[in-house]
Formats: sequence, structure tokens, C-alpha cells
Amino acid sequence: MASRRYEFGRSEEANHPDTLRATLAEFTSTLIFVFVGEGSALALRTSLTINNISFAWAVALAGEIYKDPGSSAGEVVVLALAHAFALFAAIAASAHVSGGHVNPAVTFGALLGGRISLLKALYYWVAQLLASVLAALLLRLVTNNMRPEGFSLSVGVGAFHGLVLEIALTFGLMYTVYATAIDPKRGSVGSIAPLAIGLVVGANILAGGPFDGACMNPARAFGPALVGWRWDYHWIYWVGPFIGAAIAALLYEFVMVPIEPPHAHHQPLAAEDY
Amino acid sequence: MASRRYEFGRSEEANHPDTLRATLAEFTSTLIFVFVGEGSALALRTSLTINNISFAWAVALAGEIYKDPGSSAGEVVVLALAHAFALFAAIAASAHVSGGHVNPAVTFGALLGGRISLLKALYYWVAQLLASVLAALLLRLVTNNMRPEGFSLSVGVGAFHGLVLEIALTFGLMYTVYATAIDPKRGSVGSIAPLAIGLVVGANILAGGPFDGACMNPARAFGPALVGWRWDYHWIYWVGPFIGAAIAALLYEFVMVPIEPPHAHHQPLAAEDY
Amino acid sequence: MASRRYEFGRSEEANHPDTLRATLAEFTSTLIFVFVGEGSALALRTSLTINNISFAWAVALAGEIYKDPGSSAGEVVVLALAHAFALFAAIAASAHVSGGHVNPAVTFGALLGGRISLLKALYYWVAQLLASVLAALLLRLVTNNMRPEGFSLSVGVGAFHGLVLEIALTFGLMYTVYATAIDPKRGSVGSIAPLAIGLVVGANILAGGPFDGACMNPARAFGPALVGWRWDYHWIYWVGPFIGAAIAALLYEFVMVPIEPPHAHHQPLAAEDY
Amino acid sequence: MASRRYEFGRSEEANHPDTLRATLAEFTSTLIFVFVGEGSALALRTSLTINNISFAWAVALAGEIYKDPGSSAGEVVVLALAHAFALFAAIAASAHVSGGHVNPAVTFGALLGGRISLLKALYYWVAQLLASVLAALLLRLVTNNMRPEGFSLSVGVGAFHGLVLEIALTFGLMYTVYATAIDPKRGSVGSIAPLAIGLVVGANILAGGPFDGACMNPARAFGPALVGWRWDYHWIYWVGPFIGAAIAALLYEFVMVPIEPPHAHHQPLAAEDY
Repeated sequence: MASRRYEFGRSEEANHPDTLRATLAEFTSTLIFVFVGEGSALALRTSLTINNISFAWAVALAGEIYKDPGSSAGEVVVLALAHAFALFAAIAASAHVSGGHVNPAVTFGALLGGRISLLKALYYWVAQLLASVLAALLLRLVTNNMRPEGFSLSVGVGAFHGLVLEIALTFGLMYTVYATAIDPKRGSVGSIAPLAIGLVVGANILAGGPFDGACMNPARAFGPALVGWRWDYHWIYWVGPFIGAAIAALLYEFVMVPIEPPHAHHQPLAAEDY
Repeated sequence: MASRRYEFGRSEEANHPDTLRATLAEFTSTLIFVFVGEGSALALRTSLTINNISFAWAVALAGEIYKDPGSSAGEVVVLALAHAFALFAAIAASAHVSGGHVNPAVTFGALLGGRISLLKALYYWVAQLLASVLAALLLRLVTNNMRPEGFSLSVGVGAFHGLVLEIALTFGLMYTVYATAIDPKRGSVGSIAPLAIGLVVGANILAGGPFDGACMNPARAFGPALVGWRWDYHWIYWVGPFIGAAIAALLYEFVMVPIEPPHAHHQPLAAEDY
Repeated sequence: MASRRYEFGRSEEANHPDTLRATLAEFTSTLIFVFVGEGSALALRTSLTINNISFAWAVALAGEIYKDPGSSAGEVVVLALAHAFALFAAIAASAHVSGGHVNPAVTFGALLGGRISLLKALYYWVAQLLASVLAALLLRLVTNNMRPEGFSLSVGVGAFHGLVLEIALTFGLMYTVYATAIDPKRGSVGSIAPLAIGLVVGANILAGGPFDGACMNPARAFGPALVGWRWDYHWIYWVGPFIGAAIAALLYEFVMVPIEPPHAHHQPLAAEDY
Repeated sequence: MASRRYEFGRSEEANHPDTLRATLAEFTSTLIFVFVGEGSALALRTSLTINNISFAWAVALAGEIYKDPGSSAGEVVVLALAHAFALFAAIAASAHVSGGHVNPAVTFGALLGGRISLLKALYYWVAQLLASVLAALLLRLVTNNMRPEGFSLSVGVGAFHGLVLEIALTFGLMYTVYATAIDPKRGSVGSIAPLAIGLVVGANILAGGPFDGACMNPARAFGPALVGWRWDYHWIYWVGPFIGAAIAALLYEFVMVPIEPPHAHHQPLAAEDY
């Protein structure tokens, strides 16, 4: 496996312009993704609020006033498509620069599989989390101080259920990332990898959203939690994605990736050349 | 036609690491697909249940309490997009390893067309069915023991109607698979084959879902049926897809595929190199 | 322009296996497309019918009983996605064989632009119309004799308005076809041409569907009209698409396509090698 | 940077057939995009109007009569998908001819980054605005004189909030354009650039639409504003997109694009060969 790991020293990498560009690409793409994702949740709430104030009675009859955003079919579709389309674009925009992680759990999986150095992973994590905080602050500004929603468990969903669900959903996400964007034998599927990754996140939200929000991404959860100061069950959206990504990465790297011949030793990082 | 069939012996294939990897790829991709597909149906039911308990009267006025999941326009969209996006990702993740069947009926069609050996088909079938059962069990775990929905006929739809509908829908699916992913002359369309296959399943659900669920995939039906113990009309979701896939595969293989020149004898399995 | 026209004689073409395969590809793809498109309209109606019978009062309060299928936002989304996804798959499955017209108006545009011979166009038209009739008959069978919907003008939309709308929408469709699938200089966009064509039809339905159904395709209208015996304003769905496709084809072929150098004389039909 | 700018003289470019074709491509693609985008907004309003007249009481109970188009989840999905799908097709149809801007703000960003000459930008701007006016007039014709909607701020959204939101959303759009369609090192992602750009616009509408319409495109706003004569806050939809596009273009061009070696001096405009 050593042949797939970065060999050059930390100080060299830290100063390398490509590393700084990759970190900036992760920052910008995560900013775009979290801004749209959390923004779509606030957009659902704002239209409810307007309805509630003005036409409470009529809307109450229609059953809408009592619903949480995301609980009706149409609202889940809004959230799923917003996350799917924005993540697709965010990954497409950064794939050739940083590998298009846009997710600390995906970076963790790539680290476990030996596809990224620990130093670079640290850079990515800091960039992803800072971008998430900036996105949440920007949303607070443009929405006239609406409090971000973040993630929480629906009524009747326990912490254990939410944790296992996050593990399962993130497993599907990371497996798709590995198979379509990292596997050196992925072939022409690589050109549509960003779309496959974006849409599998959309599918997972349609299935898991009504239960626990279907986060799969600690950076997606962190900024809104900090700016909205909502920390209930926040740990689930870190532990679950990291475990799910770890299982998928180890499975794919050590079982699914065929042994590469020695002459592949110097090939560039697979994750970074979709 | 013989030139397109596997020639090497069964014992060799059974031990070949590529065959085991392909089988594992079918297992994982089917797990992801069934987990999301069945999960989206349960997600629709859980939001209804919450509404029913707490706000029955208001919701009853809105007509929602009486509806089955999947009968309103928004709910059909949820089911169609969840299956379409998840299947696209599942096929994209396995296309270069196993051919991306994720469906026993598709494997049957590939077998009839001479594109896969019987032994490999048996491996795939077992993997697909086991993955479906595991997905249904996992869903039961994360949803606090909700009973899987599986597939059944809507009110007013007879067994004969459902059977013909499954045949017609699966014909469209298998024809798309053959033309975009197996046909040696498919050209650049091959790179978006997983998307075409995923989205045609979504389209078929929009058209057929309100009638019989639009299954097209015995593995999608089997696990939820077993774990939810619902067997009414279950045979329709095996017989229909197998007949539809058989018609499409035989039509495409023996009419649409041009005769290949002799020098194409040793080319690799077309289904496996999108 | 002559260099782009077919030169070989009619009798040769009529017997050529590739011509027969192309015609069969148009037949099958149109069958899949019309079955799904018209099926999605019937699916919306069937769920309304079930509601009407059983729970008329509650549903009436929700305003649903009085709506035509396709008039609410959710229903327009169902129709748009069903047509978009099915057409994408139908074109992807036939692009490399027949050019992926799946629409007599598109065939007419290709004929005017000199991209297909008259004889082949006649073959295509017969295949497209027969497939549409078969799709409508199949739907009548699987839906227990529901009468196909076909297309008609909404309340308040006059024949002139509908005609101009069909011209405008089909212009957008045919322009997309020409630019992404026929233009010899289209480059790598060609690989996603079937998706662009499918999705522009979906977009057009979202914009035009509530006014006149947004047909853009005489074959999509003909079979359901015949089997459902609804001929009011049927001519609009022939004349409009043919005019719109003609304008787009002539504009693109004679203004947008650069003059090709002489050595391009013998290149194969651009429409057929996406 | 000079190496990336056009060197040939203005008179030469003005008469060059390729420049005229590119300008015509921008005109036609913008026509298609604005016709569908504004048409989808009018389509939502027309179905509400029909309901209001005939069944006001029942619909009022369902809460629909009091809603603005675009405020419910289903309506936002209609608008987002219509714009996303139409923009994808419009860009795919013009990418290889004009670079596929279809947006004066994108043209402005390309101008700031030195990817297009000022003269060509002026051509594009005129074509984009004229196409938008023609699209609005055509819509007025086919809808029996419905007044275009254009863009405005929702209740409770101030001019400052709307301006910052347009900046943020257009930043995401222009960053995606630069990274996937202009960056010379974008690699195979370029083939799906039109889809990424179309879908990021759809995602942005899902997040920003309920607040300020999520325009991101002065041409999308101008024609409907002129034909519908609605100028309140119109300046926001010019200033916001131009600032957002400028920030993204300068960031990408001068930070993210690696220094190109001298031998890349004569390579064609990256924006024009996706």
C-alpha cells in the first residue's frame, strides 16, 4: 500500500502552491455547498412563517402549520435536490484541484485508504469547517438574522437509530466516492463521478431525511450548529459519518482495488484526477 | 454467437479474484440501492404516522390521512427520484467491476444474451438477494422496527394487469441496459449509461408506481417481502421482470447487435467496461 | 450542402440491414417514451379517481377533486420528469443506431437540414407512429381500460396561442438536438446530448404544460388520440412541432454550421454518432 | 495575463463569421432559457388563477389561494427544475460556439478574467438582452397577454439582504463556470460542465428563490421587467450578479489557475471548447 502514499516531506507539501490551491478549492466548494444546503432548509421555514402569520387559520386546515420543514413529500424533495445539485457542482468545481471531498468524513476515508497525506487532510478539515461557519454567518446576514436549523433527530428516533442511520448512509456515499472517483480502474465512469456522488446524497436524503436529516457530512452540520447554537445530538453527525466512511474506504481500498503493478508507483493521486 | 460467451472453466472462474470482486460489487451496490429505495417508502410512511397521531383532524381535512404513501404526486416524485438517483450511483460504482446489474432480471437478460456465464449469474443472484435482505434488516433496525412495505397491487389493479405492466416496464429497463451498456457499438453513450439506466427506472416509477409499485427488480422486492413478511402477489415481481428482461435481451442481442467481425473474438465482456 | 446528403439509391437503402435496425430502434425507443409519458398522465388520474370515490368530501376540502391532472405544481413535476427521464433513456438507447429522433418533428428537421434521406424519414415516421399506437393500446390493457388522455388546450388557451406555443417549444427542442447531436463541431458536448435533449423537454413541459400540454412531438400525441379517440385540436400537435422544428433546423444548418472543408465529404452521418 | 487575451484587432473580430455565430448562439440560447424560466413562473400563476375563479372556497381551505407562486415547496421545485434543465440545454447548445454564457454577469466575469475581448462581450450583452425581451414578448403572445412576473423581493426581505444574496448566489454560479468550463486544467469534468452550471442554478433557486427569486442573471430579469413594466428593485438583479461574478472570476483567474507555461500561448479560448 505504501506505493499509494505521499512520500515527500511535510514542510515541502505545506508550502507547495498546489496544496494551498487544493485547500482553497475545498474551502470555496464547501462554502457553496453549505450555503445552498442550509439555505434551502431556511427557505422552507421562511415560507411557512409567512403563511403562519398572515393566514394561520386557512393553513391550519390544510395541515401545514403543524409540520416541521422537511416532513412533507414536497419539502423533502426541495432539500434532496438542493443538496444533490449543489454538491454535484461543488465537487465538479474542485475535483481536478483537490479531489472534490467537500466533506471531512470523505477526507477521513481517503486518509485511511492512503490516498491523501495526514497534513493535507488537516488542511482540508480546517478549510471545510471554516467554510461551513462562514456559510452559516452569510445566511444569517441575508435572511435578516434567521437562526440556522442544522440537524436533529425527528420525534421517535433515538440516538442509536440516528447513529446507525448516519453510518449506513455515509457508507453508501463513501463507497460511491471510492468506486467512481478514486479507484484507478474506474474507467470512463470517472467523468460522471461528481454527478453520481451528488445524486447519491440526494437519494440518501429522500430516504433518511425524515428520520435524522441525513447529514453524512460533519462540515454540513458544524457551521449551522455553531451559528445557530444547537448542539443536541451534534456528536451523531460526526461519529456516524466518520465510521461509515471508514468502513467503506477500508473495504474498497483493501478488497475491491486490485493489486497494482509496480510500474504504477509514481502515478498521481487518483482522487485528484477524475 | 459463441464468440461472445465465456469459454474458461467453472472452477477457474469460481476462484478468480475478479469474479469474487464482481460478486462483492453486486452485493454492495444492491445493498445501497435497496436501502435507499425501501427507505424512501418508509420515510413517507413515518411522516404520515406522525401527522396522524398528533393532528389527525386538521390533516384529515387536507385529505392526507386517507392516502397511501405513493399515491399523491409529491410522494411519487420522492419514490421515483430516490430509486433513480440511488440506482444511478449503485450502477456507476459497480459498472467497471461487475457490469452494474444490481438486479436479478438484468443478470438474467445478460445470461440469455450470452454476456455472462451461468456460474457468474448464480453468484450475482445470491449476492443480490442477500444484500436485499440485509438492507431490509438494517432499515428495520434504524427505523425502530418499522415493517418494510415491499410491493403490492393498488386497489383496482388485477394480477394480470400488474404482470403485464411489470413486463412492459422491465422491457424498457433492460432495453436501455443493453443499448447503452452492453452493445459493443454503443460509442460515447456508454459513459452516461448508468445515468440513463437510473433515470429510466425513475421514469417508469412515475408512470407505473401508482398502479403496482413499478418494481422491475426481484431483489428490490425480495428482502422487504421477507423481512416484512408480505407475500401477496410477490410472484408478479419475479415473473414479470424476468419475462420483460428476456424479451428485451433476446431482441437486442439477436436483432439489434450487428454481426461482429471474427477479430473481435477475444474482446472483454462488453457489459463490464462501460 | 449536397455533400451531407445520402447519395446511395433508395432500393439499396431500403434493404440495408442498418436501415432496418435504425427503424426498429426508433420503434422501440418511441414505444418506451410514449408508454411512460402517457402512463404518467394516467397514473395521476388514477390516484385522483381512487380519492374521488372513497373520500370525496375530505378531498374536496383540500381542493384536489376539482383539479385536472397536471394543473398542480406537484403534478406538473411528475409529468415533466417522466417525459424528461424517459426521453433521455430512449435517445441514449437509439442515438448510435438511428440518431435517436423518437419524434417525427425531429426527423422532419433532420430531413430539411439534409441529414437524413426522405426514404429513411418515411421509415422513421411509420415506426414512430406505430409505436405510439402500440404504447397506447398496451396502456389501455394494463390500466384496465382507462381512456388515454392525449393532449388538449387548457381553459382560456386559444388555438392560435397553442399553435405558437408548440412552435416555440419545439424550436427550443430542435435547436438543442441540432447543436448537441448533429453539429459536426459539437465536440465533447455530444456525449451528453441525449441528456440535454431529454431535460429541455422536461423544462418545456414545466413552462408550457399547464397551457397546452407541451407536446412537441406528433408521435407522442397520435397514439393516445387514436386509442382514446380525442381529436379536438389534434392538428395543433402536428403543425406546431413541424413548423418549430423546421425553423430551428434551417437556422442551424444554414447559419450556425460552419462550411465544412471538402475532405469531410465522406464522413458518416453526424446525427448517428453522438 | 496578456497571453490569454485576444490580440487581433477589433475590426477583424467584428466581421469574423465565428464572432457573429457566437453572438447568434448567445441570442438563441438566452431566448430558450428566458422563455422557459419566465414561462414556468407564468404557468404556476395560470393554474392558480383557474382555481381561484372556479373553486375559490375549496381552494381557500387548502391554503392555496393566498400563496404567491413560488412560495410552496412544490412551486419552488417547478421553478428550480425549469431553470436548471433549460439552462443546461441552452449552455450545452452554445458551449462549443460561444462559450455558453447565456448571462451578462458570466460574460462580465469572463471579461475581467481576460477570457473574452471587450468587443465580443458587448456583442454578447446586446444579444442576451434582446433575446430576453423577445422571450418576454413571445410569452405575452402565447399566454393571451399575461403580464410577466420578473423578480422582486419577498415580504420581509430588504434591499441590502437581496443584494448580498444575489452576490453570494452568483459567486457560486460563476465559480462553477470558471472551474468546470474555463480552467485549462479542468480535465474530463469539462464534458459535464453545462450540467454542473445548470444544476447549480437550480440548487441556488431552491435556497434563494423564496427570498428574492434567485435571479443571478440580468438578462433573465431585464426582458420580463421591460415587457411587464416592473422596475422595483430591478437594479439589485444587475448589481448583485455583476459583483458576485467579478469576485469569483478574479479569485479563480488569479489564484486558482496555475501559471501556464509559455508554450500554451496560442491555445484557443478555454471557455469555448468545453
